[in-house]
Amino acid sequence: MTDTHQWVYAFTEGDGKNKKLLGGKGANLCEMTQIGLNVPPGFVITTEACLHYLDAENNAVPADMMQQVREQMKTVEELTGKGFGDPENPLLVSVRSGSALSMPGMMDTILNLGLNEETLRGEIEQTGDERFGYDAYRRFIQLFGKVAMNVPDEIFDAEFEAVKQAANISEDVGLSAENLKEISERFLTVFQDHTGRAFPQDPYEQLEISIKAVFNSWMGKRAVDYRREFGITSDMANGTAVNICTMVFGNRGNDSATGVAFTRNPGTGENKLYGEYLVNAQGEDVVAGIRTPKAIDKLTDEMPEMARQLAELRDRLESHYHEVQDFEFTIERGTLYCLQTRNGKMNAVAMVRTSVEMVEEGLIDKKQALLRIDPTHLEQMLYPRLDQNVTVEPLAQGLPASPGAAAGRAVFDADRAVLQGKERGEAVILVREETKPEDIHGFFAAQGILTSRGGKTSHAAVVARGMGKPCVAGAEGIHVDVQRREAIVGGQIIKEGDVITIDGSNGNVYLGKVPMVEPEFTTELNRVLDWADDVAYLRVMANADTPTDAARALKFGAKGIGLCRTERMFNAVDRLPIVIEMIVAETLEQRQAALDKLLPIQRGDFRMLFETMAPRPVTIRLLDPPIHEFLPTERQLMDDIDQLEHLRDSVKGMEVLNSSVSLLHLAPGTEFNPAASRELVSLELVEQAIKTKQVMLNKVRVLTEVNPMLGHRGVRLGITFPEIYGMQLRAILEAEAECASKGMEVHPQMMVPQVCTAQELKVVKKMMDEIKADVEAKTGHQLNCRFGTMIEVVRACMRADSLAEEAEFFSFGTNDLTQATFSFSREDAENKFLPMYNQNQILHDNPFEVLDEKGVGKLMKLAVEWGRDIKPKMSFGICGEHGGHPQSIEFCHRAGLNYVSCSGPRVPVARLAAAHAALLNE
Amino acid sequence: MTDTHQWVYAFTEGDGKNKKLLGGKGANLCEMTQIGLNVPPGFVITTEACLHYLDAENNAVPADMMQQVREQMKTVEELTGKGFGDPENPLLVSVRSGSALSMPGMMDTILNLGLNEETLRGEIEQTGDERFGYDAYRRFIQLFGKVAMNVPDEIFDAEFEAVKQAANISEDVGLSAENLKEISERFLTVFQDHTGRAFPQDPYEQLEISIKAVFNSWMGKRAVDYRREFGITSDMANGTAVNICTMVFGNRGNDSATGVAFTRNPGTGENKLYGEYLVNAQGEDVVAGIRTPKAIDKLTDEMPEMARQLAELRDRLESHYHEVQDFEFTIERGTLYCLQTRNGKMNAVAMVRTSVEMVEEGLIDKKQALLRIDPTHLEQMLYPRLDQNVTVEPLAQGLPASPGAAAGRAVFDADRAVLQGKERGEAVILVREETKPEDIHGFFAAQGILTSRGGKTSHAAVVARGMGKPCVAGAEGIHVDVQRREAIVGGQIIKEGDVITIDGSNGNVYLGKVPMVEPEFTTELNRVLDWADDVAYLRVMANADTPTDAARALKFGAKGIGLCRTERMFNAVDRLPIVIEMIVAETLEQRQAALDKLLPIQRGDFRMLFETMAPRPVTIRLLDPPIHEFLPTERQLMDDIDQLEHLRDSVKGMEVLNSSVSLLHLAPGTEFNPAASRELVSLELVEQAIKTKQVMLNKVRVLTEVNPMLGHRGVRLGITFPEIYGMQLRAILEAEAECASKGMEVHPQMMVPQVCTAQELKVVKKMMDEIKADVEAKTGHQLNCRFGTMIEVVRACMRADSLAEEAEFFSFGTNDLTQATFSFSREDAENKFLPMYNQNQILHDNPFEVLDEKGVGKLMKLAVEWGRDIKPKMSFGICGEHGGHPQSIEFCHRAGLNYVSCSGPRVPVARLAAAHAALLNE
Repeated sequence: MTDTHQWVYAFTEGDGKNKKLLGGKGANLCEMTQIGLNVPPGFVITTEACLHYLDAENNAVPADMMQQVREQMKTVEELTGKGFGDPENPLLVSVRSGSALSMPGMMDTILNLGLNEETLRGEIEQTGDERFGYDAYRRFIQLFGKVAMNVPDEIFDAEFEAVKQAANISEDVGLSAENLKEISERFLTVFQDHTGRAFPQDPYEQLEISIKAVFNSWMGKRAVDYRREFGITSDMANGTAVNICTMVFGNRGNDSATGVAFTRNPGTGENKLYGEYLVNAQGEDVVAGIRTPKAIDKLTDEMPEMARQLAELRDRLESHYHEVQDFEFTIERGTLYCLQTRNGKMNAVAMVRTSVEMVEEGLIDKKQALLRIDPTHLEQMLYPRLDQNVTVEPLAQGLPASPGAAAGRAVFDADRAVLQGKERGEAVILVREETKPEDIHGFFAAQGILTSRGGKTSHAAVVARGMGKPCVAGAEGIHVDVQRREAIVGGQIIKEGDVITIDGSNGNVYLGKVPMVEPEFTTELNRVLDWADDVAYLRVMANADTPTDAARALKFGAKGIGLCRTERMFNAVDRLPIVIEMIVAETLEQRQAALDKLLPIQRGDFRMLFETMAPRPVTIRLLDPPIHEFLPTERQLMDDIDQLEHLRDSVKGMEVLNSSVSLLHLAPGTEFNPAASRELVSLELVEQAIKTKQVMLNKVRVLTEVNPMLGHRGVRLGITFPEIYGMQLRAILEAEAECASKGMEVHPQMMVPQVCTAQELKVVKKMMDEIKADVEAKTGHQLNCRFGTMIEVVRACMRADSLAEEAEFFSFGTNDLTQATFSFSREDAENKFLPMYNQNQILHDNPFEVLDEKGVGKLMKLAVEWGRDIKPKMSFGICGEHGGHPQSIEFCHRAGLNYVSCSGPRVPVARLAAAHAALLNE
Repeated sequence: MTDTHQWVYAFTEGDGKNKKLLGGKGANLCEMTQIGLNVPPGFVITTEACLHYLDAENNAVPADMMQQVREQMKTVEELTGKGFGDPENPLLVSVRSGSALSMPGMMDTILNLGLNEETLRGEIEQTGDERFGYDAYRRFIQLFGKVAMNVPDEIFDAEFEAVKQAANISEDVGLSAENLKEISERFLTVFQDHTGRAFPQDPYEQLEISIKAVFNSWMGKRAVDYRREFGITSDMANGTAVNICTMVFGNRGNDSATGVAFTRNPGTGENKLYGEYLVNAQGEDVVAGIRTPKAIDKLTDEMPEMARQLAELRDRLESHYHEVQDFEFTIERGTLYCLQTRNGKMNAVAMVRTSVEMVEEGLIDKKQALLRIDPTHLEQMLYPRLDQNVTVEPLAQGLPASPGAAAGRAVFDADRAVLQGKERGEAVILVREETKPEDIHGFFAAQGILTSRGGKTSHAAVVARGMGKPCVAGAEGIHVDVQRREAIVGGQIIKEGDVITIDGSNGNVYLGKVPMVEPEFTTELNRVLDWADDVAYLRVMANADTPTDAARALKFGAKGIGLCRTERMFNAVDRLPIVIEMIVAETLEQRQAALDKLLPIQRGDFRMLFETMAPRPVTIRLLDPPIHEFLPTERQLMDDIDQLEHLRDSVKGMEVLNSSVSLLHLAPGTEFNPAASRELVSLELVEQAIKTKQVMLNKVRVLTEVNPMLGHRGVRLGITFPEIYGMQLRAILEAEAECASKGMEVHPQMMVPQVCTAQELKVVKKMMDEIKADVEAKTGHQLNCRFGTMIEVVRACMRADSLAEEAEFFSFGTNDLTQATFSFSREDAENKFLPMYNQNQILHDNPFEVLDEKGVGKLMKLAVEWGRDIKPKMSFGICGEHGGHPQSIEFCHRAGLNYVSCSGPRVPVARLAAAHAALLNE
């Protein structure tokens, strides 16, 4: 480096975009200055100077740096009319660190630098305020001592307290000029004692020491640790700049003030200055909260000229930054200074409203409007949430298993939920230790679900998410006692009927009804999402299992249904007994008889789905899970049989408890009315129930698998029991024919799960073609149901070319694909080792939440490539949970997919994310 | 096609290599003729003629084909001195079909064509044998009627029987010329009645009808079905040729004979003609088995000149075909004819011996010697097998779970196996319903294992295969009653001590001791395998868990150990209690205490392994399975506790049954002597056992996983409990140091299982480096243990590039990789749907037996490619069960792997397969 190298830039000359050279804060100060804002004069020492200093032997500053500092200081002196070290009219400055990325561990601010015994007197004379002068002086001594010379804060604080106590003063504001003078003197002694030298009187010495201290802090332990921890490389930030800025004071009298403001309301987005200020105060006072600040409106009355200038400042900020600004200002004796500005943080409602309004005002274009909204933040607009202004202590905490908040009367079994919820029309929360498929009617009846056991993938969590109902799972502090119809939390008892509130977004459980904010699907949101659809390449479909889900998804703007899990239909209370009948069937005839009962039900489901979504596509996945999932567990059945045997011994015409009776209602062929909570039970009925449970138990034992995730499921099941897929295919095709007969345009698509070889597809395709021909012949309608496959088995990716010859579309099932790619069982991994893996950075993310691009994504890309080698126009989609995750959606865009499918409430999130993906990869 | 096209080739001119044109049989006849063997004259009509015929409208033969046939027939007449249709000296011929591939469903042979009322008289005159003439005639009428004109065989047979019965004759040989004449006449009537036309008298008409019948049979239903079933495309075989050959007769008197022979002994490989013959008989007579043929040696006495010519023929066959031949001959009145020859099928012993001897004789080169031996056949040489000459009816059948045969006294628990087997020195077979880790001492003591439950992947099967002991698993017909120490099969009871024999190669179980053949690792085999090693690129290593396994693997020629499963060591009877102590530990200290006990044991194991194999590499896999696999199942423990509670109630100093007492010996800290079958049990001991079982039960419940295959195992476990891997790493490194201190050159390699990201490898590598530094410092020896990783998780394939930066070698674990690639749980799949998938050709092979090239193999190739992108010299191996499977080994060669590792007895198979792979991909 030569002598002519520039180490120091005035705020008027530094490049406001060059954060790497000037640090974030320095660049910001330069930019504000250059767009004509009234920033106190100052300059920036570059990060290059810092690196030069650190690289040099014995840490020397560059040869000519201090000379450049002196020259800059002269300019500041000229601009302010003050002199650095001038005993008459001293110039005081602040010294701040600032690297390209803000990071904790860097040096604190030093204020009031330039004060010494002489300039102090000048300052007091200039301001005519002795107390102000000594207050400034004692602050400088402490900050300089602590920050630049490592004098422990506690020693200063002890002296401070000693003077306060001696003067018998409780609040700092009560300290007199005399007290503060004494404190300053004591601080000078502390400084001398601790550093072994007198407090430096030469302002340039003060400055040079401070600059070096800032430089040194870059290699301080906390800063180094932080950079390593968060992977900040020297590409991202290297060295720190030093910002030297003229001090301005908002505490110079009633013509002075200090405040913070947003250019628009960050809570509502309203286009109106929003903020607060304090007259005759310093910035610290606003933070300390000793005095209550006034709303910014008041300024018009108190200082009309300043209010006018502030409005001007606001306009200038927005027209320059094209973004809502969060800025700090100080008024020193009638002059308005802008000290800092940054993009304003807002809630989703405000972000959406300001996006739309700023486009209307011509401040930004639609692309900018879309990109400034974080898709994940949208979600908070789409679920009921607790009013943030209300602070209540939660009673217990569980896992945030399904987002949204709900309040209602606690009920402890599904039948009571139906009774109180559906029939009496009350809001209820279903509280269980854990839920099972037979509780499904309780889910429908309840506003929300709370369990004391199970994780984010427990039955309760998965079903609630599917239904879009709030759920808190695994709140282990709650002990549920179904027999007594109560739950115990700590010492507190929740009885049936007590109102509770759950927040599925953070896992909190509250006693009583906490005020809530309903979701707002505003006009502005709709406009933004329409813009999003215009630029997005990926179409957004919804995962929906019922006509209700479908209708909601439509409201959220879904372009179709990307995944309908038919097994969810099997779990409904009127169907599960038939499904169990099918499973326990010993012969094909028995199984066919059960399937014959299911056929019209499924056909009705499908028809309603098609009608709801017409003319959008509806993608139906054939039965996927291992069939033993429809049966209770072995242990549950053993317990049930045990209980029923006790019941049998005690019944004989007696009235019995509802809780035991509820065990009966799964016996196929028996009719059970959950509303009639107490009824006479015949011995015969109990015997029949025992027998049924025993048949189920035997079947469960036969069907049990070592690794059900890798078991007898999906198309393997469909090929082993062709009558099951046959029923489903017929239901789909007959539903299509029924719609066609009404002249409706519907687009059913069916897809085959768990496929690993094209041969499997051929078998199912043949089945479909035969049934289709039959339905067409019988109804006279030509059917168009499309035939696709899930890609959720690794081998399906490897064989994408050969599968492409059979299928019309591919849908990546990234939940299962992730399990198989990692050899992680999701339920086991999330409970056993995955949190530890994430914590120790062995894996950066939970791959079940964030699509693993390097592994799973690589497989997907290969599948897309090989599939399109055979069919260049092949349509690819994703229907795993990742389909609603913005980062994963961006990957899907890059990987060349055509659509994503996600749960209804995430559809708006996904629409915006799809637009981001398109814009960021233009 | 022009008039000059050649449709017919004389045996003297057809190209013996052109099976596509001439069919397999035709080409063979041409080749034999042209190398100077005495084949009866004849000619071949080409497959082209057949296709021409089938393509033509109304199925017409090519215009000039019959003209060419007539010309060829003239040549035959000249060569034989007979005339086709000549009433004086008639020429008779056979007509046979023959396509490029032999396939059932094609046309049968027609013999004696050319006979009619006139030529019959000439034939009788020529031979002077009326009976011979009528016998030939009636055969011709029946064959022609049946084969060419579709007259049902039964009608002819009924007439034949009618004559026999009328003449009161029981055997065909008893029929007189008169009888046969009557039969011929009746047959002619049958022919007339059934076809509506008289039996054709013109020999050329007979011939043309026969040729067309052969052509038509190509499109017959059976033939078409067969080709579709076995995927025979027109590339492989298209159309059938027709072979027309002069008849020769071995039944023309005592100077005539017929026989079959091998040029060498197919049972032993001895270089000596081997076969049998019948004087004055036809080929059919040898097959019919009515007369007992004579050994070929006898011919020297009976017909010395013929014997000399036969020896000459033998030499000519081998020197031409360079392979042992299985040939048919006929002697007609002192002239030796060769009618057919093909490569001889031999057992493995003979294949190996002949390979070596033929190389010595200069008949073949080493490459040919290697390629002619099928590697899978070698296996039969390496296990004891039942004497094939003994035929005993099996008592029961199970699954062939571990190859080889064994006989011994039945024992029904592991302790009795030790008592009778190890201590009394008797051969025993351990018979159990199913086996568990705590039965392991019984495996060591027994000759073989028989279970009534479980499949090829059951505990019994896996452990037995690992030990190389025969095992029959899942013999469901056997009911094991441990309490009564007996097993019931059908009505039969096997008591303890009864001798049984099991054959693990086919799953049969026999009562008593069936004679056995011991395996022969012959000098010849060693020579062949040495040649194999010379040409192979892949090195063959062995999977071995104990020094005994290792020593055996060495004997089989393993170049090192490719996989040592340390968990197998954990299962030994002296260690399992310590392992359980480690698992149930509640604190790090408790766990460390257990590990401290395991350390010297593991170190000893490793040292012995290293010493046994020195200086070959020994690859040790760190702990892989989920730790709950070392604990009994939940149900087992509940049962045990139940039993122990009963025991507690009844003990109080009484003598109790051994079967309950054996439950005690898993209680850590208690000492139990299985030899002392009856002993006094103290109440205290029982209480302690109950307590221990309860602790285990609680732990089992905590550790239970939904999908253990995808669970908390391998490196995930190693990172969660670093003290476990720490102990194993220390044991390996200290063992290396101990060997080094003795001046031994050893090459330990350690590898990490279940890796999915490089970060995992980094964590373990750091652990290893720290322990290595410590051991080096303490012992003063520099250690060289290499660091590698298993590739058995799909993601590891996708991340092969990044893993390659951490690892020194990769070993594909294709068992787990196959499970993850297919999303098939092996245990579930093989029991539930895989057999059905294979049967219905949805999957061609069981991917757990034959490496799936299209899916798993594709992943492997990507991993090899991406790994070598980073480290071009990276070593790749395979240690799944596929490593011993020839077809999979060939794939490994093509995929560029460096070594395969397989179980000890498969090492020779793999060595030969590796040589084949190299030779076939030269």
